[in-house]
Amino acid sequence: MMDNLELIKPISRSSPTRIVLLVIDGLGGLPDPQTGKTELETANTPNLDQLATRGICGLIDPVGPGITPGSAPGHLALFGYDPVSFNIGRGVLEALGVDFDLQQGDVAARGNFCTVDETGLVTDRRAGRISTEKCAELCQLLDGLIIDEVKLFVCPVKEHRLIVVFRGEGLDFEVSDSDPQQIGVAPKVVTALRPEAGRLASITNQFITQAKATLAGHHPANMVLLRGFSKRPQFPTMGEVYKLKPAAIASYPMYRGLAKLVGMQVLETGATIEDEFNTLKQNYTNYDFFFLHIKGTDSAGEDGDFTRKVQIIEQLDKAIDDLTAIEPDVIVVTGDHSTPALLKGHSWHPVPILLYSKWCRPDKASEFSESACLLGGLGRFPATQIMLLAMANALKLDKFGA
Amino acid sequence: MMDNLELIKPISRSSPTRIVLLVIDGLGGLPDPQTGKTELETANTPNLDQLATRGICGLIDPVGPGITPGSAPGHLALFGYDPVSFNIGRGVLEALGVDFDLQQGDVAARGNFCTVDETGLVTDRRAGRISTEKCAELCQLLDGLIIDEVKLFVCPVKEHRLIVVFRGEGLDFEVSDSDPQQIGVAPKVVTALRPEAGRLASITNQFITQAKATLAGHHPANMVLLRGFSKRPQFPTMGEVYKLKPAAIASYPMYRGLAKLVGMQVLETGATIEDEFNTLKQNYTNYDFFFLHIKGTDSAGEDGDFTRKVQIIEQLDKAIDDLTAIEPDVIVVTGDHSTPALLKGHSWHPVPILLYSKWCRPDKASEFSESACLLGGLGRFPATQIMLLAMANALKLDKFGA
Repeated sequence: MMDNLELIKPISRSSPTRIVLLVIDGLGGLPDPQTGKTELETANTPNLDQLATRGICGLIDPVGPGITPGSAPGHLALFGYDPVSFNIGRGVLEALGVDFDLQQGDVAARGNFCTVDETGLVTDRRAGRISTEKCAELCQLLDGLIIDEVKLFVCPVKEHRLIVVFRGEGLDFEVSDSDPQQIGVAPKVVTALRPEAGRLASITNQFITQAKATLAGHHPANMVLLRGFSKRPQFPTMGEVYKLKPAAIASYPMYRGLAKLVGMQVLETGATIEDEFNTLKQNYTNYDFFFLHIKGTDSAGEDGDFTRKVQIIEQLDKAIDDLTAIEPDVIVVTGDHSTPALLKGHSWHPVPILLYSKWCRPDKASEFSESACLLGGLGRFPATQIMLLAMANALKLDKFGA
Repeated sequence: MMDNLELIKPISRSSPTRIVLLVIDGLGGLPDPQTGKTELETANTPNLDQLATRGICGLIDPVGPGITPGSAPGHLALFGYDPVSFNIGRGVLEALGVDFDLQQGDVAARGNFCTVDETGLVTDRRAGRISTEKCAELCQLLDGLIIDEVKLFVCPVKEHRLIVVFRGEGLDFEVSDSDPQQIGVAPKVVTALRPEAGRLASITNQFITQAKATLAGHHPANMVLLRGFSKRPQFPTMGEVYKLKPAAIASYPMYRGLAKLVGMQVLETGATIEDEFNTLKQNYTNYDFFFLHIKGTDSAGEDGDFTRKVQIIEQLDKAIDDLTAIEPDVIVVTGDHSTPALLKGHSWHPVPILLYSKWCRPDKASEFSESACLLGGLGRFPATQIMLLAMANALKLDKFGA
């Protein structure tokens, strides 16, 4: 089967129409056992319901039936990139999450501060979950080394977690992890998984030796473990594939980073829903595609807070007025995965989607909800096809074949 | 697109939850022209309807739209194995069907007793459909030969049908059939389709010569025809792929054999529906996945007996009480294909499915029927995705990507 990107690239064309992709993170839910209604069904959403009435609805599978997507695969699918073939290394993902400006050629690894005993065996892989402040302090001690002409950046993430970025010429990232993923054993020596990676393996082992010496007096964080060495992948950009000039409006670093990977311009924005819609309004004439990311719904779902998730959806619904006021040619509202408050985490359940355009063949769905979307005109389909539909509805696709 | 098994293997995990996959063979039907109702819609099934109300429904395509599945592809799909790429040779399938304990390295062929005239030309490919008893008697005459250090097992199947199993070191099975598939010609000499198979071709031809001599006085069964030489395939096991400890409860040899091929433990069981559910109850704590196979519905459909199929569904419905009483975390009820009594055989029609778990996002389906499933929340999907959904609902799958 031809990849969607290959299919669309030769037939996409630039045009003055504009697309807004509104991603409500973790949108899909599960019904409250008392009411039988999901978070979205419970929320009072007159504006979204009106958009659903004028538009066409459906359900998407971000990765596939039964698969619970992480944030990266969930978003890549929304942008039209098959999340199984377009893979992002763990080190790179963690670097995106802290807004580290990864350059071409950089190798990123994620790591933990950990505890080792006097014989060097790991006794706690998370160093007693030290505070984020303590982590930042220790990272400063290790940051900025230059080993064998390679510069090392060491940055805190959260609690015991850190990243190490190696910047220098000709680094191959195919090296093994030092993290043994268990306690009672010594950290592993990093080895090259192919000959070209010998240099990075050697540099990493030197770094670990120096880090151990520097951290000696900082029990419980007296050692580091590294894993997931990876480079920023080279994805075809949305400009190349769709001939779009795309912009991202997101307040969390991870989503800005993902947007950068597919070639979006990341806009400066405030963090509230209102801020984000203001940013959209202010930049509306400069781009023809906007990815607007709402994070609060996912966080509320992860916290198991059904009511807060409902409230954030209702708050968002008010802002929909601002969105329809600027009259985008195509509006897509969906999520990157479900995060039911009942499950307190991402889940595999398909995600509601609504698409509005002047050309969308409206269905009978008159509210934006899991149950209405189930009977919607878009049916149930893979998230990787959303961009095809958005582009078509924006009249940005030529005929396929003569 | 990545195969489901490759996708699921790195994210599956063992856990204390339990899955029951209840396969009602040939479940799907066609409406009686008088009533407009299928077998399943005609049957009074309060327990299944209740499960449908609490669960989520849909329709599956075992192999693909329009494709009528044999029993083997139908079941492989239910177990998550793409029935187009996971192929089982005809000889092996017939051996599974008579419960022959195929060893690694054995080559199995299916065969017919046939009639040849005095010049050696085939006059009846089925030897006048001799009785199964006669077949068994003749097989005994041929069984147990040792040719070129290879032991031959000759076993009756049904009427004129038999299997021959070749057991010895280093046998390659790529040989041609001796069965000419027409009358008026001589049985074919078996030839090697690649050099390594020369030995099996020679042994087979020697066997056929000896069989002809032995059978000379047994007209109309005075010759054998062999075809479908194959070895037991090496499939990844459900233990490897899903980290499950799976058990099969089935009274027909073919289904037990299929279950063995994917690494299930086959449990001893009585043949009635009640027996099978008792076997489930008795073994419930020892496994975390159960494949329970109900054969009667398919047999009734094949016989064109609409009423009997309805009765067997009703009988099964009574046993559903026993199933829900043991509270499996996930219950899947479906079939391996449709067998409409009106067609007197397997058919291509999609098959109703219901899935119940605490986490299944119930739909509006309040009965288990073809028409209710058509509007169900699972939609219409390939049968190979059932295991993904069952595993997800059992909370046995990790997140895909970060």
